[in-house]
Amino acid sequence: MKATTGFSITTINQAYLELESEGIIQARPRSGFFLRKIIRKAPKVKINHPVEPDCRPVNRSSMIQSCMETVGDPRLIPLGLALPHESLLPVKRLGMVAAKVMRYQAAKGMAYESVQGNRDLRSKIAFRSLDTGVLFDPEQLIITSGTLEAITLALRTVTKPNDTVLIAEPCYFAFLQILESLGLRAVSVRSCPDKGIVLNDVKQVLQKFNIAACLLSPNFANPDASLMPSEAKQELVDLLTQKEIPIIEDDVYTEIYFTENRPEPLKAHDKEGLVLLCSSFSKTLAPGYRVGWLEPGRFKEEALKHKAGTNPHSATPNQMIVAEYLAQGDFDQHLKRLRKSAHAQVEAIQQRISQVFPSNTCCSRPLGGMFLWLKLPPEIDARTLFLKTHAKGVAIIPGNVFSCHQGGLKEFIRIGCGHPLTPKIEKGIHILGELLREMTKKGSNSCKGLCTRKLA
Amino acid sequence: MKATTGFSITTINQAYLELESEGIIQARPRSGFFLRKIIRKAPKVKINHPVEPDCRPVNRSSMIQSCMETVGDPRLIPLGLALPHESLLPVKRLGMVAAKVMRYQAAKGMAYESVQGNRDLRSKIAFRSLDTGVLFDPEQLIITSGTLEAITLALRTVTKPNDTVLIAEPCYFAFLQILESLGLRAVSVRSCPDKGIVLNDVKQVLQKFNIAACLLSPNFANPDASLMPSEAKQELVDLLTQKEIPIIEDDVYTEIYFTENRPEPLKAHDKEGLVLLCSSFSKTLAPGYRVGWLEPGRFKEEALKHKAGTNPHSATPNQMIVAEYLAQGDFDQHLKRLRKSAHAQVEAIQQRISQVFPSNTCCSRPLGGMFLWLKLPPEIDARTLFLKTHAKGVAIIPGNVFSCHQGGLKEFIRIGCGHPLTPKIEKGIHILGELLREMTKKGSNSCKGLCTRKLA
Repeated sequence: MKATTGFSITTINQAYLELESEGIIQARPRSGFFLRKIIRKAPKVKINHPVEPDCRPVNRSSMIQSCMETVGDPRLIPLGLALPHESLLPVKRLGMVAAKVMRYQAAKGMAYESVQGNRDLRSKIAFRSLDTGVLFDPEQLIITSGTLEAITLALRTVTKPNDTVLIAEPCYFAFLQILESLGLRAVSVRSCPDKGIVLNDVKQVLQKFNIAACLLSPNFANPDASLMPSEAKQELVDLLTQKEIPIIEDDVYTEIYFTENRPEPLKAHDKEGLVLLCSSFSKTLAPGYRVGWLEPGRFKEEALKHKAGTNPHSATPNQMIVAEYLAQGDFDQHLKRLRKSAHAQVEAIQQRISQVFPSNTCCSRPLGGMFLWLKLPPEIDARTLFLKTHAKGVAIIPGNVFSCHQGGLKEFIRIGCGHPLTPKIEKGIHILGELLREMTKKGSNSCKGLCTRKLA
Repeated sequence: MKATTGFSITTINQAYLELESEGIIQARPRSGFFLRKIIRKAPKVKINHPVEPDCRPVNRSSMIQSCMETVGDPRLIPLGLALPHESLLPVKRLGMVAAKVMRYQAAKGMAYESVQGNRDLRSKIAFRSLDTGVLFDPEQLIITSGTLEAITLALRTVTKPNDTVLIAEPCYFAFLQILESLGLRAVSVRSCPDKGIVLNDVKQVLQKFNIAACLLSPNFANPDASLMPSEAKQELVDLLTQKEIPIIEDDVYTEIYFTENRPEPLKAHDKEGLVLLCSSFSKTLAPGYRVGWLEPGRFKEEALKHKAGTNPHSATPNQMIVAEYLAQGDFDQHLKRLRKSAHAQVEAIQQRISQVFPSNTCCSRPLGGMFLWLKLPPEIDARTLFLKTHAKGVAIIPGNVFSCHQGGLKEFIRIGCGHPLTPKIEKGIHILGELLREMTKKGSNSCKGLCTRKLA
């Protein structure tokens, strides 16, 4: 090849990899690289300019609540929620397992479960952790009512009111609500949609502030779907371990990866028990069942005390049903299908966005999760857009709900991709595109240095 | 009658009522009064002497946890838990309803419920409130994961860390755990097993301390099963309303009344929306389902914010199942049976206690609930007794877990009456009685002025 092109093999390999990452070519096993059907892609979302970090009480709840009240409204076209649609979930099978458990183990399901949770379920979660790069001990796990209870417990375990917690900007709005509800302060570091949080920002914050804990989502963070590279995870854990700062890790979207392997959690790099890992079956099996878990690292005793002290028993039958479903061995097959569908849906919605949104709308290119993070054309305020789309019967989430700063991230929106691209969803995207085009003044179609690459 | 006895009718009526309340005679409809099979009864538990109230941080969790870990141990004879045994619950019927809901509404059950909770369930709870002396509006109710989440939410709504909360002594240990977990301080007022909290103590505390909220169980308080008379409820609400102090009311045992009618909640006397009523189906239908509610009075917006901020969705299928069960109209019949069984069990266990415990053991005479509050012979420490019974395979709860003072209530124990008086339970009571007799020195069998009455 060198003979015909004059380039070195390393250069050519690098070019192939770049073309593949852009989706222009595609590798087929034992056949080589092939051109894909080329689709226009919206430019990538780039990281914001650095700002001086500051530490503040969190007070965004009222705004978040008023936004979120409308998002689940069944009369709206659901571009807001980052949840798998029921067609992606094993509804029939889980329903049958559930019916069997409820009928034949009715009495057991009606009794209280222990504070730590169903032993059988804990064993099964521990067994599954074999694939994640970290092996859990069932005796260490605490079953919770969803990931959010796990995160609340973890925060209450390692902080007290008025302590400062390091978070990402953007940050999942429910985390901001929890921080406010617990009377905690927050300082944020930038997250880059490609690589997750900026480690230099973390270093700067650690120098300037007394940080009681970090609350982070290293894999497919909600809302920017960012994924931290393995080396960055290691460096982050080392950095925080030096200062003995506990890390509360949200691992809830990790199973929905489009990469070859499941990315490892921060916990896999944790030697000191400083990582409190929080996850659940809410994005992979049954959101409404509220079955999650906390692996509290070295803080088990204190975490159990808080669990006993506020919500001593998570619902019993829900835990039994999930344990029984896992015992049937169907979950891995289901996850494979779920990943494939989620990937296809994210790509399909990306493509439609590229076709109908103004060309200077930038879009994330997630490697997992169920949502897209969009930077709007510069003259558009997401809050205005939110009100306009709502009036037209479409639900989106404006970026400002993901910021702990008033007026922050108002140039962003999150689009959920949990629903298949039905005509209804297509219609929602078209309505949104039309609105954006109306709101965009003619002639201001440049991304003003925010995006480095544009594909034709 | 006057002609034959020489007493006035009023005096005679009064005598009949006293004899009936002592269980010596029994009224049969349209037949008159009849002698009951006379059983010896343990003397009543009387109220403790007053102590100077003090306000303190709550720090009893570790002790409570270490006690409670053993109480649910299935290898022990369960005299500890204050829960209905499965034979008292509609296991088969609820199991069938649950199986049907899980199978035929599987997808709905897997989706998130709204923050406020299932609308249908809220309507049904509101409809049932018609019988309680206060009519709820479904739009006011918030569905919670059990009563304890309702109480935690209520406390977080009306207090901030380091605030002082007025509680009863004895106080349900889970409340002490919540107070500690939320960093609250407590000041206690005495509760009298006959009449509930002592209003003079409340007045004294209100003069001396800045009280942010009260947390009380006016009907069949756990553990002393005390019931506040209606006039005392009115006076308490008036007293606290004058000072605009919110009252968090635990109403969870009220449905298990042995009286003719359901005692009304404090909420029925509340004109200003200051009462936050907390209850659940945990003692009447399915403990493990974790379906409760909060009627937050004038604090709805703030309570919803805290619900959204920590546990935004209570489990979906559990709410659907309870709503469907209530729709079938069987609940009232079940409650009648439950009350009858609970009453019979409480009386049967009382009787056995009278037969086998030292005669100076004093025992509460509850008009509802599922537990007995016992004052031990003066030389016995409940903590020692707890360890000894545990070693002999019997679970009881020592009184000190119900006190916010170190060393408080160590002369008391709580005996759960949720289990029918099977040979196993009989054996447990006998073991306990034997231990008590061994521990009681000969000749010290007086109640030392603690009990006013002894029945032969």
